[in-house]
Amino acid sequence: MEKKNSILANYIDMMLPAVESELKRALLPVRMAELAGLFQMCAYHLGWEGEGAGAEARGKRIRPLLLLLTTAAAGGNWENALPAAAAVELVHNFSLIHDDIEDNSPTRRGRPTVWQKWGIAQAINTGDAMFTLAHLSVLRLGESTSSASVLQSAQILQTTCLRLTQGQYLDISYEARGDLNLDAYWSMVSGKTAALLSTCAELGSLIANASEQRQEAFRDFGHSLGLAFQAQDDLLGIWGDSALTGKSTEGDLLTGKKSLPVLYGLSQQAAFAHRWEQGRISAEEVPVLAEQLKAEGALDYTQTVVEELTVQALHALEHARPQGEAGQALHELAEKLLTRRY
Amino acid sequence: MEKKNSILANYIDMMLPAVESELKRALLPVRMAELAGLFQMCAYHLGWEGEGAGAEARGKRIRPLLLLLTTAAAGGNWENALPAAAAVELVHNFSLIHDDIEDNSPTRRGRPTVWQKWGIAQAINTGDAMFTLAHLSVLRLGESTSSASVLQSAQILQTTCLRLTQGQYLDISYEARGDLNLDAYWSMVSGKTAALLSTCAELGSLIANASEQRQEAFRDFGHSLGLAFQAQDDLLGIWGDSALTGKSTEGDLLTGKKSLPVLYGLSQQAAFAHRWEQGRISAEEVPVLAEQLKAEGALDYTQTVVEELTVQALHALEHARPQGEAGQALHELAEKLLTRRY
Repeated sequence: MEKKNSILANYIDMMLPAVESELKRALLPVRMAELAGLFQMCAYHLGWEGEGAGAEARGKRIRPLLLLLTTAAAGGNWENALPAAAAVELVHNFSLIHDDIEDNSPTRRGRPTVWQKWGIAQAINTGDAMFTLAHLSVLRLGESTSSASVLQSAQILQTTCLRLTQGQYLDISYEARGDLNLDAYWSMVSGKTAALLSTCAELGSLIANASEQRQEAFRDFGHSLGLAFQAQDDLLGIWGDSALTGKSTEGDLLTGKKSLPVLYGLSQQAAFAHRWEQGRISAEEVPVLAEQLKAEGALDYTQTVVEELTVQALHALEHARPQGEAGQALHELAEKLLTRRY
Repeated sequence: MEKKNSILANYIDMMLPAVESELKRALLPVRMAELAGLFQMCAYHLGWEGEGAGAEARGKRIRPLLLLLTTAAAGGNWENALPAAAAVELVHNFSLIHDDIEDNSPTRRGRPTVWQKWGIAQAINTGDAMFTLAHLSVLRLGESTSSASVLQSAQILQTTCLRLTQGQYLDISYEARGDLNLDAYWSMVSGKTAALLSTCAELGSLIANASEQRQEAFRDFGHSLGLAFQAQDDLLGIWGDSALTGKSTEGDLLTGKKSLPVLYGLSQQAAFAHRWEQGRISAEEVPVLAEQLKAEGALDYTQTVVEELTVQALHALEHARPQGEAGQALHELAEKLLTRRY
């Protein structure tokens, strides 16, 4: 993310180190000599340790950032929300560890996935441990929040985890049956991506003691942002720099992922769809097919979808009346996420 | 379990149907047309549906039974504890679904495992869904219990789940390195089996509003019971009827599981250990090697361990002052579990 001279950048500089500290605190229960290997797998996946560790390997920590900014923009003290921020990042990462096994993905953020390095058995179990640590982290909200709010937060996060597994069930099923279409796409993406981003905004405002109406507006903001984010991700998975070079093993045309532009292309039943139905696309074909898909209108279509969803997100945000500089930073975050080019 | 003419049998007849109903209630969130396959996998694993469904396929539901009996024996209303009873059974079954993948086990309770039928991807995700449903079930305790008790219950259950994953980490690691010994065995089993049984007794007494001291005694009871239960399981895994026939694919000598008697045998460095070190044991060799292991003292040793742990368990139970008929049923449960022959 472009960081210079922005309110968002100042918040990022302030909040992300606190998030890393809180994540480390959340992982303390596996930080013992007997469990050194378990901690190592978690720390590797979180980008702290091992080959290729560092900022790139950590991902952008968008979810905790969204949660903490929402707390501040709803008039609360963002530091009270840190246990929830760590929890959503751990839930996200637990699901990535398991998704990588389920999707048979050898790499993630340019590094070998946990199952590639340590085998499927340890990777499943490490995901389970991280899932549990996430929920234990949420329960620590009790140090600065009422029991009722902690319970509500736990309930919201668990319900979201259920939606993640429901979305993933649909994803695996469509993958196996090959019958994913545009309608089903949104149902799946609502579970797989939007549910957790929506929950970040909801939890952030709940912890700030915002009114229910305002919590709902923040939740809607997160939901539309999540859908837009996924559509933009799908766009970059085909026309982003690393996907187009053909060198990346993660480009969506190469892996055969039925992303939004691909589904649009298939619905056109033209040259792109014809080639797709003939089987796996090779690295050499990627640039030509990306161009073909664009010519059939898939890039325009996806861009329009991203823009519409962004308008919806910003509209919901306006409704939530975000306060002060944190409110401005939330605006900035939404705009940055949805105009990113990588 | 022998059921006739016993107080325990009456409780089983009363409680288990309520447990099944509560489990069905816990699974409602995946009972929709769009998620039919996800519900089907859960229902199959729980023994409700599919080939071979029925009492045998369900397992004994020991954990919810222990929890509910403890609530009653601590002077509470066991029906209030049903959401927690469903939760511990779901946690147990989630861990079985994942363990079966991690251990590469093709069958469980005489039926193909979930991953064998639906593949690894769906099985991982189904386990994740069941894990989440377990925690959502615990949060439903709030319908009849104070927020503080619900939070404490959620905390206890999550901490136990963490111990399960810690135990499983050790199990997989020892499996890979081949250096499990008797000391490490107890550490692993404390996490893998005793932690959840201990939690059943603790949660049961917490929901009954028992004093902390009494909760601790019930927890100790569950812990010793869990260790004894595992040791007895290990005994039956070698000298139980189905293990000895050599027809079962689940006998521990055949699968090469380093159970308590095997570890004892290895520590003797005699004929059994010599044969073990030469590689996989065939179905034909099983009866002879089981006899050899017995001759080297492993059966006596394991029986003594089971008896000692049972005495410890019953001692802790006495300390917990269980009340009325439910108290007697708890005694009976402990004795039945530890003298079972199958």
